[in-house]
Amino acid sequence: MNAKNAEIVSIGTELLQGVLVDTNGLFLAEVLHGIGIEVSYRTAVGDDRQRIHQVLRQALDRAAVVVVIGGLGPTEDDRTRDALGDVSGRPLILHGETLERIEERFARRGVPIPELVKRQAWIPEGFVVLPNRHGTAPGLLWEDGQRLLVALPGPPREMRPLFTEQVLPVLLERVGSGQQIQTRTLKVCGLFEAQVEERISDLLHTDHPPIGLLAHPGEVHVRMTVSGTQEEVQIQLEEWEKKLRDRLGDAVFGVDEERLEEAVGHLLRLQGKTVAVAESCTGGLIVHRITNVPGSSDYFERGIVSYSNHAKEDLLQVPSPLIERHGAVSPEVAVAMAAGVRSLARTDLGVGVTGIAGPGGGTEAKPVGLTYIALADAQGEEWCEHRFQYDREGNKLWGSQMTLEMLRRYLLKIRVVA
Amino acid sequence: MNAKNAEIVSIGTELLQGVLVDTNGLFLAEVLHGIGIEVSYRTAVGDDRQRIHQVLRQALDRAAVVVVIGGLGPTEDDRTRDALGDVSGRPLILHGETLERIEERFARRGVPIPELVKRQAWIPEGFVVLPNRHGTAPGLLWEDGQRLLVALPGPPREMRPLFTEQVLPVLLERVGSGQQIQTRTLKVCGLFEAQVEERISDLLHTDHPPIGLLAHPGEVHVRMTVSGTQEEVQIQLEEWEKKLRDRLGDAVFGVDEERLEEAVGHLLRLQGKTVAVAESCTGGLIVHRITNVPGSSDYFERGIVSYSNHAKEDLLQVPSPLIERHGAVSPEVAVAMAAGVRSLARTDLGVGVTGIAGPGGGTEAKPVGLTYIALADAQGEEWCEHRFQYDREGNKLWGSQMTLEMLRRYLLKIRVVA
Repeated sequence: MNAKNAEIVSIGTELLQGVLVDTNGLFLAEVLHGIGIEVSYRTAVGDDRQRIHQVLRQALDRAAVVVVIGGLGPTEDDRTRDALGDVSGRPLILHGETLERIEERFARRGVPIPELVKRQAWIPEGFVVLPNRHGTAPGLLWEDGQRLLVALPGPPREMRPLFTEQVLPVLLERVGSGQQIQTRTLKVCGLFEAQVEERISDLLHTDHPPIGLLAHPGEVHVRMTVSGTQEEVQIQLEEWEKKLRDRLGDAVFGVDEERLEEAVGHLLRLQGKTVAVAESCTGGLIVHRITNVPGSSDYFERGIVSYSNHAKEDLLQVPSPLIERHGAVSPEVAVAMAAGVRSLARTDLGVGVTGIAGPGGGTEAKPVGLTYIALADAQGEEWCEHRFQYDREGNKLWGSQMTLEMLRRYLLKIRVVA
Repeated sequence: MNAKNAEIVSIGTELLQGVLVDTNGLFLAEVLHGIGIEVSYRTAVGDDRQRIHQVLRQALDRAAVVVVIGGLGPTEDDRTRDALGDVSGRPLILHGETLERIEERFARRGVPIPELVKRQAWIPEGFVVLPNRHGTAPGLLWEDGQRLLVALPGPPREMRPLFTEQVLPVLLERVGSGQQIQTRTLKVCGLFEAQVEERISDLLHTDHPPIGLLAHPGEVHVRMTVSGTQEEVQIQLEEWEKKLRDRLGDAVFGVDEERLEEAVGHLLRLQGKTVAVAESCTGGLIVHRITNVPGSSDYFERGIVSYSNHAKEDLLQVPSPLIERHGAVSPEVAVAMAAGVRSLARTDLGVGVTGIAGPGGGTEAKPVGLTYIALADAQGEEWCEHRFQYDREGNKLWGSQMTLEMLRRYLLKIRVVA
């Protein structure tokens, strides 16, 4: 049987009202993808017997594995059991073992069994019952020729063990031994999505492995998916990572979960360098990100959020005539902030960031988003200018991103100012 | 036209691999539900032109409003534009205005335009273009007799304003006057979820309106949903908000989108008070949150992230014998930090936070998560102790939350130290 194609169907009106995140669907998508089953569709539908029936009919027409989650509860609006009966053409029958299990469960808790709960023991004839250790609704499994239909209760603490312990082994058997799917993500900073695509376009047009691009604020993720035996997967991942790195070079700052602030922290630690930060428009975000990394106190000495001119003069020794002459948002002040914080903190490096986060405070000459970032070391200072076009929090985020990237390029001895 | 029935279609292979949570779909489901449009289906499909076409075909057959999100980017795997052309039977044409807008965007940033980005200016003939202020891909809108098809770019900070500003008004017109659904959320700090539930349990067991509780780090959201005519909805919301506030009192810090840092900022502004912050374990997060609020430079003077003892002595005048005697993580040092930053910044209030964010640095006497928060004004200082039990970022988040709450209670003249 070819079980390489699946559809996830989530049942519940809450999912259609934006009240509940479908974490079950997310979990299943990840696990199925991981074992080499391609999820082609995810569908959410409300607690409506006819609509559930139609969606299941369609799913069984286009997928070899259909996993339905939710709608197996005891109340009137739980219609999945009925719809399973409809789509399979099987009548619901009372399943004695399941009824006993439910009764025992209530007896152990010393609670009288509500009549409604017994509905959960009615299942479509011929379905395999998957006992639920964490709740009253059992999972259900049905094979119809080439296709496999699985129904699981909605509460994640019931669904997950049921799936992992009782459904996953069946699926693994179908997929066949050996085959795996693995992904690896290279994270890129300093290039736009379209620039990344231009550089790797020849690799994108081959089919193996599929490579996907995803843009995030100030970074692009290049994700490759490979399949094969465990050994093949490892070889392919290495090989393709090398090809991508050849084209993307130092723009790649990390792999998979690694964040830009971790990459910077790693380089600082490796080179035994310390840093201090003076920021105004980014308002503490640069330092917040640096200090999110465990052990950052080894290389991070202090952060100054100098929102007022007084703070800039007082804490960073930025001369007040300099601010008057060039304005607080100027290359000169960014440089003075970087040099000032470095000298006072006695660190190897100093960072200075000044800009206009918005929404207020912009002028024609100095619009919202204008940001100067400076870096100081024992030899001197360099600076760069950015013109971000986001809202306040977006401008802060981009400002922090470009600052960390400037630090990274400095530490890698890549030309900092473009 | 009956626009009361909608389908949300999310495009992106990542959604099928469990890599990305579909927050866009969740947002749209909530808003559509809120204006009385029933979402009957949500579907996710990968970056496959034919599958997208089929899903759109089906959606247009069963819903009056179809909202497609994602797949409008500049790269090869963004196939939504093609699929929109397929389903509408319209050819893609180059939209001059959109091209100009994209070119201007890059010119303003002083960056050369990558050739691929221009793909985003190709749109199906006859579609209405919804200009995107936050990115290069415009939204698209098409009316086909009774049905409305809307396509929006995937990045939430582009999708949300596009939807709210340009699509929502069209939908509201279609839905027509009459029945509405509205929700209001009261946000609570300083009580656990179970405490909130105890205080309002009599209101939870009535059916009208349904009230839901949702716990977030350091706050609880109480959400009521009412329906009726516009007038009825307003009356009910006022009435129920009053009932809830009678029971929850000053623990309610905000309504709907209002954040704790905004509530604090509002009080500071109202009372004409200024504040400066000295933080160590929270690593800049307190100041980052304070400065996320537009206009915060009016009341926020400076932030010091004193990661080293040297920084504490140097920038905050915390005496080094005090640190030696009590340790950097102690009430004495928190108080000295608060008093020091206040006096140097010449603000009305000073905040000092010191603790152990983890994962390293804990001892039996001073475990990871131990945090002291102090507040200084002209009369003196007060402090409190917390023992958080989260990971590094969780401890930082709770530390910032409890600090903002302490400030709020101080400004409201509620007893600060429990």
